[in-house]
Amino acid sequence: MATSPAARIPRKHRRASTPLSATRYDRRLEAILAHATEVFCDKGYEGASMRDLSRATGMSLAGLYYYFESKERLLFLIQKHTFTTILNQLKQRLETTADAEERIRIFILNHLEYFVRNQQGLKVLSHEDDSLKNGFNAEIGAIKREYYRLCIGLMEDLRRQRGVDFNTRTAVMSLFGMINWIYTWYNPRVDGKAEVLAEEMGNIVLNGILRSGRPATTTAKKLPRNS
Amino acid sequence: MATSPAARIPRKHRRASTPLSATRYDRRLEAILAHATEVFCDKGYEGASMRDLSRATGMSLAGLYYYFESKERLLFLIQKHTFTTILNQLKQRLETTADAEERIRIFILNHLEYFVRNQQGLKVLSHEDDSLKNGFNAEIGAIKREYYRLCIGLMEDLRRQRGVDFNTRTAVMSLFGMINWIYTWYNPRVDGKAEVLAEEMGNIVLNGILRSGRPATTTAKKLPRNS
Repeated sequence: MATSPAARIPRKHRRASTPLSATRYDRRLEAILAHATEVFCDKGYEGASMRDLSRATGMSLAGLYYYFESKERLLFLIQKHTFTTILNQLKQRLETTADAEERIRIFILNHLEYFVRNQQGLKVLSHEDDSLKNGFNAEIGAIKREYYRLCIGLMEDLRRQRGVDFNTRTAVMSLFGMINWIYTWYNPRVDGKAEVLAEEMGNIVLNGILRSGRPATTTAKKLPRNS
Repeated sequence: MATSPAARIPRKHRRASTPLSATRYDRRLEAILAHATEVFCDKGYEGASMRDLSRATGMSLAGLYYYFESKERLLFLIQKHTFTTILNQLKQRLETTADAEERIRIFILNHLEYFVRNQQGLKVLSHEDDSLKNGFNAEIGAIKREYYRLCIGLMEDLRRQRGVDFNTRTAVMSLFGMINWIYTWYNPRVDGKAEVLAEEMGNIVLNGILRSGRPATTTAKKLPRNS
């Protein structure tokens, strides 16, 4: 006991260690990560101090060090929570259809729905993309690669199903640019719901690539009526 | 003389104040801004110190304060130099044609050509979008608005010339997302020249919006042959 970090922290700072049910704990963790996201968003990762994070989360500085160890681990948890949530939700939604176009639309909607509600999180993820080092970076890198590859796979399915040819990497990266850049401009009062934006961006990217590519074996199934 | 900042700086730090021709001065300024961009790119604006900037630019700390006054003014000059260069070059290039599609392609190429050579600059511009305050922020804001409005104008010309209807704001912001996001992924060895990328992204966004919109008075002139 004498060597446990908790023992070295005065009792008054240990309040958060009272047992919580998994759900209450999850909710509390999510709330702390949301507050930390706000701080990283406002001050940048480099500019934010553990003291800022303590103030924003309402946790004592000692408690923050005890539960989260470091600023870096907080950023890691924010990224892990975000990507895991998005990815799990996406996989579930993709099970509903095998149509490549529909699946790309699901990908776009899933991403936009999450991030119009978490614009600050999207900013932090974009700006602090290379702030994590070593093990933290490796673990997040693996989740991000899975997400990226899943999107590449969706585009390749589209190529096969529609028999069109296009540069998959440019298409995927253009799509990521479109759906990630929203953190700089999206305004719910002006730009409507995620569904509207997902429909518009889905139209741009799908019509864009289906019409840009050289035709191969078949033509697109859903041509616009006016063509 | 006693109150001039130069008088308070030791003579050895004042070397850069010997008269330079406009061209040499411009080149020197550009080199300093490029080094400062690298520092802001690596450490973030908040994380970078005037000492880091002094080391990277090869200017004494006193000289840096004398010529640039503050870290904020350096960031301001980087942004001003970038946007002014891009905007002036764009206006010149746009004079060559009145065709709306061609003009949007010129816009994309002009932006990508500049930023595939200045990826670090694009990262700094994106990440430090809200780091400038007050007067600095107002001046950069005005140039950025001009650039944005010019792009809105190009899209509206396309609407008129082609008689299609689409959400101009979503189209412009999607395009900005595509061409700005390249700082996170573009690799000259893998992704080829700016011209290739501009062609591909131009195809996506132009086919995307010309095919997404509701038809109005006329149909698109350049339909793909296979439709």
